[in-house]
Order: sequence, then C-alpha cells, then structure tokens
Amino acid sequence: MFYRAFLQIANFVMGSLSVLKKNQVEAFIKVLEEAYKENKRVLVMGAGRSGLVGRAFAMRLKHLGYDVYVLGDTIVSPVEKGDVVVAISGSGRTALIITAAEAAKKVNATVIAITTYIDSPLAKIADVVVEVPGRTKISEVEDYFARQVLGLHEPLAPLGTLFEDCTMVFLDAVIAELMHRLGKNEEELRKRHANIEV
Amino acid sequence: MFYRAFLQIANFVMGSLSVLKKNQVEAFIKVLEEAYKENKRVLVMGAGRSGLVGRAFAMRLKHLGYDVYVLGDTIVSPVEKGDVVVAISGSGRTALIITAAEAAKKVNATVIAITTYIDSPLAKIADVVVEVPGRTKISEVEDYFARQVLGLHEPLAPLGTLFEDCTMVFLDAVIAELMHRLGKNEEELRKRHANIEV
Amino acid sequence: MFYRAFLQIANFVMGSLSVLKKNQVEAFIKVLEEAYKENKRVLVMGAGRSGLVGRAFAMRLKHLGYDVYVLGDTIVSPVEKGDVVVAISGSGRTALIITAAEAAKKVNATVIAITTYIDSPLAKIADVVVEVPGRTKISEVEDYFARQVLGLHEPLAPLGTLFEDCTMVFLDAVIAELMHRLGKNEEELRKRHANIEV
Amino acid sequence: MFYRAFLQIANFVMGSLSVLKKNQVEAFIKVLEEAYKENKRVLVMGAGRSGLVGRAFAMRLKHLGYDVYVLGDTIVSPVEKGDVVVAISGSGRTALIITAAEAAKKVNATVIAITTYIDSPLAKIADVVVEVPGRTKISEVEDYFARQVLGLHEPLAPLGTLFEDCTMVFLDAVIAELMHRLGKNEEELRKRHANIEV
Repeated sequence: MFYRAFLQIANFVMGSLSVLKKNQVEAFIKVLEEAYKENKRVLVMGAGRSGLVGRAFAMRLKHLGYDVYVLGDTIVSPVEKGDVVVAISGSGRTALIITAAEAAKKVNATVIAITTYIDSPLAKIADVVVEVPGRTKISEVEDYFARQVLGLHEPLAPLGTLFEDCTMVFLDAVIAELMHRLGKNEEELRKRHANIEV
Repeated sequence: MFYRAFLQIANFVMGSLSVLKKNQVEAFIKVLEEAYKENKRVLVMGAGRSGLVGRAFAMRLKHLGYDVYVLGDTIVSPVEKGDVVVAISGSGRTALIITAAEAAKKVNATVIAITTYIDSPLAKIADVVVEVPGRTKISEVEDYFARQVLGLHEPLAPLGTLFEDCTMVFLDAVIAELMHRLGKNEEELRKRHANIEV
Repeated sequence: MFYRAFLQIANFVMGSLSVLKKNQVEAFIKVLEEAYKENKRVLVMGAGRSGLVGRAFAMRLKHLGYDVYVLGDTIVSPVEKGDVVVAISGSGRTALIITAAEAAKKVNATVIAITTYIDSPLAKIADVVVEVPGRTKISEVEDYFARQVLGLHEPLAPLGTLFEDCTMVFLDAVIAELMHRLGKNEEELRKRHANIEV
Repeated sequence: MFYRAFLQIANFVMGSLSVLKKNQVEAFIKVLEEAYKENKRVLVMGAGRSGLVGRAFAMRLKHLGYDVYVLGDTIVSPVEKGDVVVAISGSGRTALIITAAEAAKKVNATVIAITTYIDSPLAKIADVVVEVPGRTKISEVEDYFARQVLGLHEPLAPLGTLFEDCTMVFLDAVIAELMHRLGKNEEELRKRHANIEV
C-alpha cells in the first residue's frame, strides 16, 4: 500500500500540472511580483494542513525578502489597502478562513484564493483565484483525467491530502519563478533563513 | 521557470521512491504500528519547513487515533519510555532538534530520524533512520540518478525544498499504509478531524 | 514610569478581585469541574495576547489531566456536544473568535466567554459569561472604582494589557480552585508537564 | 481556594516589585532602547508558559515598532551581531532555551536572561540578567520576605505560576517605560496592532 500510495500521490502531483490554468498562475505570480516591488505586506492563511502548506510558502517568501506574515503566528502586522492575502482552502468553505478573508477585503487588501472550487465562498470573495486540483474535483469534474491518467479508481490518500501535496509543489514552483523574476539566487535566500529556529 | 521548476520537483519526488530503502521504511512503519497498538505517545519535531511537514504528518496521525503531539504546540504531553519521537531534519544537524532528540533518548523513547544524511548527528542518536533524498545528497552520492534520471544539472528549488516535498509525500504514503494496517477508513479519519481550526 | 506602571498594573489586578462576580466565577468553575468528571474536551481560544493567556490556562488544564486543545495548535480534536469552549476576548468583538464560538454553538458545545463586556456579541453567544475588568470598562462603568481606588486617571498600560494581566491571574486562581476540587497536588501536575518543549 | 489563590498571586506580584534589582531592570531597558534606535532585531524565546509570556511581550514590542520575532513562530529572521535575544526561563535550566541562547551567543547577539536564578546555566550565558522572583527562590533565599510579607506558607499556585505572572506584569511595565522613552503613544501602538488575527 505504501508504494502504491506514494506513486498515486506523486502521479497526481505530476498530472496536476496539466490542469493548472496558465492565466490564473500568471495572475497570482504577477500580484506577488508587484507586492515585492511596491513593498506591500503579504499575509498567508489556511486552516489545518492547508495552513501548514501556506506557512511553508510564507517562509520562502521571507527568504526572498518579503514582509510576510502568517495567520496564527504571534507576530503579525496589520493588513492595509494594497497588501496581499493568500488564503488556502481546498473546499473554499473553511469558516475561519472566510471570516479572515472578508476582513481583508474590508481594508481593500488583494485576496488570492488557492482552492479546488472556483465557485466556493472563498473563491467568490477573492480577487484572484488559482484552482489547484484535489481528489473530489478531479474525479467529478475531470473524470477522464482522473480515471485514465491518474488511475484514481481507489484513492489511497485520505481527505485533503492530494490538494495539500499539489499545493505544496505548486507554491514551491511559484517560488522558483519569483526567484527568477526578482533576480534572487539561493545564497540570498540562505542569508535570510532563520539561524535559530524550531 | 514555473513549469520547469514544477516538473523538476515532481520528477524528483517520483524518482525518490526508487531510492527509499525498503527496510528503513518498514522499520519506521513497524514502530508506528506498534505504538498505536500499545497506546504509546508520538512526538513529532522538526525545525522550519521540515517542522511544518512533520506537523502535517502529526495531524494525520491524530486523525488515525494516535495520542500525538508536536514540538512547538502549546499542548504537549511528556515523553516516556517506549514513546516514539519522529525527528525530521534534512541535514541532520539542526541544533535544537538534536538537543530535543537527546532529551528523548534520555527517557528511553524510540527516536526515528528522517534525514538525508545517514551519518549526521541526528541519525547517530536515532534508533531508526529513514533516508529521504534531498538535492545535495542525490547530486553528490547518487550522481547518475540525479543527472540522468532527474536532470538536476540546474536545481531550481532552493535550499531544502526537495527534501521537504519528498518527505511530505513519503509521510502521506506512510499514512496510507498505516490506514491499511490499522484497518481505518477515511470516514473514521474525518470524524477525528478538527471542526474548529485555523 | 516603570515603577508607576508596575504598581498600576499590580494594583488593578488586585482590585479586580473585588469586582469579579461570584456567581459567574462559580458557574465557570462548575462547568470545568464537570467537564473533568465527565471526560469532556476543552477547547481554549482567543486572539492575540488574550489567546496567549488562554494558552497558559490550557497548559495548566493539561497538567490537571484535562483533554484540552487550543485553537491555533497543530493538534486539535473536534468539539462535540457537551464539550467546553473557553473564548477569551476583552472587547468580545474579535471576528475570528466569534466565528469560532458560533461554530462551537452549532455542535452544542458549552461556550464560556471571558470578556469585559457583558453585552458584547461574544457574551451573547455564550452559555456562561465571566466579566473580567479591563481599562475601558472600569473607567466607563465603574468610574468611582477606577478613579478613586485604582487611580487610573492616566493609564500607563496600553490597549488590552489590564484585561490580559487580570485574566492571567484570574485563570491561575481558577486552576488553584480546580486542583482543590479535583484533589490534585502539585506532584501530579509536574508529572503531566512536557519534558521536551519550546 | 479561588479567592485565597487570587490574593496570593496578586500579592506576590505586587511584592515582587520590591525585590526587582533596579540596575538589572535599567540594563535590560537600556539594551531594548538602544536596539530600537539602532534598528536591531529582537528575538524572544521561552519554553511553555514562560514562552507564552515572552510572546505577549514580543507582541507589544511589535506594536512599538520593533523588528521582533518569536522562537517557534513560522516567520523568524536570522539573528546577527548586535541583535537582542530575550530568553525567559524561571529555572534557567530549560535545555532547548539554553541551546538556542548558545546559538545566539555564537553570532554575537546580546542575550538577556529573565530568570529566578542568577547562577543558572542560562544566566551564565547571558550578557544581562534580570532576576524575577518565583516561588522557590523566594522561599529559599528570601525567607523573611516570602513568609512574612507574602504569606507563602502554603503556595497555592503550582509550578512556575508565580514566576510567570510576575514576569508578565514586569514586562508590561517595561513596555510602559519604553513607550515613554521612545515617545510612543497608545494610538501608534494601535495602528501596528494586527487587524486579522487569531
């Protein structure tokens, strides 16, 4: 089961690249690129494992030199007009994340939703939506892709696992693109990496 | 750059399956299986992004019914003889994680190290080591694999990214295997999922 | 300024004891006492510094043997009918805490609000309210107490400081009372204290 | 028991002001004042409830405009020569905090220890020590004070409670002093307070 599950997740991640929408990905990267250049704050949020994936992304933004915060950290700066909020929720229905995204909209922050559901409450609030596939979505909406290409007749990864693992790799690829656009190399990231951490 | 980085990471994750050592993986799963049956506590720890990957794993252990804690959470139970400590560190050299693993050894907990380096300080403390490839390891030690199979002439994912993403998928596959061995289905996991979280 | 501020805070904390409402305090302790005896879960929540005070309380509940969780921790169990949610908010108006408290009410948990404002949205949701004084409350509503007894003509402690420090001491006194009622001594608490923590 | 415990804690906090050493307090505030003026980073750390008290302090430093981080947060900047590390530990013997403080000394940060024990390992590492009384210290070393003034024949607050509550008020008084020295008013603090938090 270990090997089949590993292959299934890795295959799903690989296959998800072909269903990511180019214009959504570009819009997301563009917002982040401009946020850097205009010295805007970024606040990353998500509940549960989606929140952890968001935190991993936020760490790399910090290494890139962003003024970035994470919902749930002790130290968080206020969000203001023009700041960027990245909200991650596979279902797009997590109550606390929607409440937080609404608060961000009230102060005119730019809200980006990373979700499987384009028609979810979170996506509707957002200025930019990036659809990242999760199990349900693919098996319902993109049936051929799911069954034929990914072989998801019997999903082994429970709950939001596929969404979370896809989003992890997706956001790490966004970091690579941002490094390129902002002209950062690995050495600069290393210098901004915490030297006392747990 | 986004697409090439995504492919590179996904390829690396896929390829890493072939370098995971079967006996190490089995030893790790065995310890966790017995911990469940003997009602032992599990404490998961890691610094930075490795810590986040560990937290994602710990959440799923909780959903499986484990009495599991995370270093850095507010609520943590003491670790006792026979309890299991899962320590994640790509380099195996993170000072705070080594200090914590040493403390775990002092009370005769079973320490599992998930690391790229079998000869690192953390691996030497550990009772069970699982080697998960990261960029450096592969490019130095398994040169052919890295260059020919993964095409890592120019790694696009900075710092520990490849280790972290591999470990994320690896641990999710371990969860699938544990579900199978412990006879748990997705519905049982869902029931133990937090309903108020952020 | 340091000495005057210290005295002012310490005086306020001391003075707050006289405005705590005996029946509210007793109702709160009673709910916790029964939660222990009936093996119910406790979830503690609060935003910002109120959340930190809540976490300090949750740690002691854990030491007492409670099955307790904190909103924002990685490891959180679902809240069910009859479980206890302790929500801390000086203003009683923190959006995310209200959303979380509403979610708790939906599953028929017992919600306890610790707040300065009996007529706040949080207090209105709650089954049990404990009013803990903060600066504003006292200066508006209990003017004589504030000015004459506490000398708060010029408050030196900014924002929610007085509420947070009062609540910290208040909850520690609740712990002492629970130790007494549940027949726990310090040695038992020490045994449940984390031995690997940060 | 509730009322006696509350009084005992509040009395202890009040009484602790008279045993705080003026030169230690001044040295601590001086380091923080200069850190602000020279735009140095501050990293606050502590394990368990001491860590929570440290986090509450760090939040206020953020509100004052400091570039401040907390060990255990997702987002942490590296500590460099001249940066300030505030380490809180009643016993001064917490392994992970000592390891972290040693790491800070290696990069020539200024380490401040807030502890009950001037001769503890943590205090010995530190550049500046502030002794804050806890139960043990007072009952052993300052016997008259403990018994006669504070009436601690039968301490009701378990474990580190008295140290933690004293340190909470102590650090809030330090904030009042810093507001004064740095010329900040409450309105400026409010502007830097997170508007989306949990």
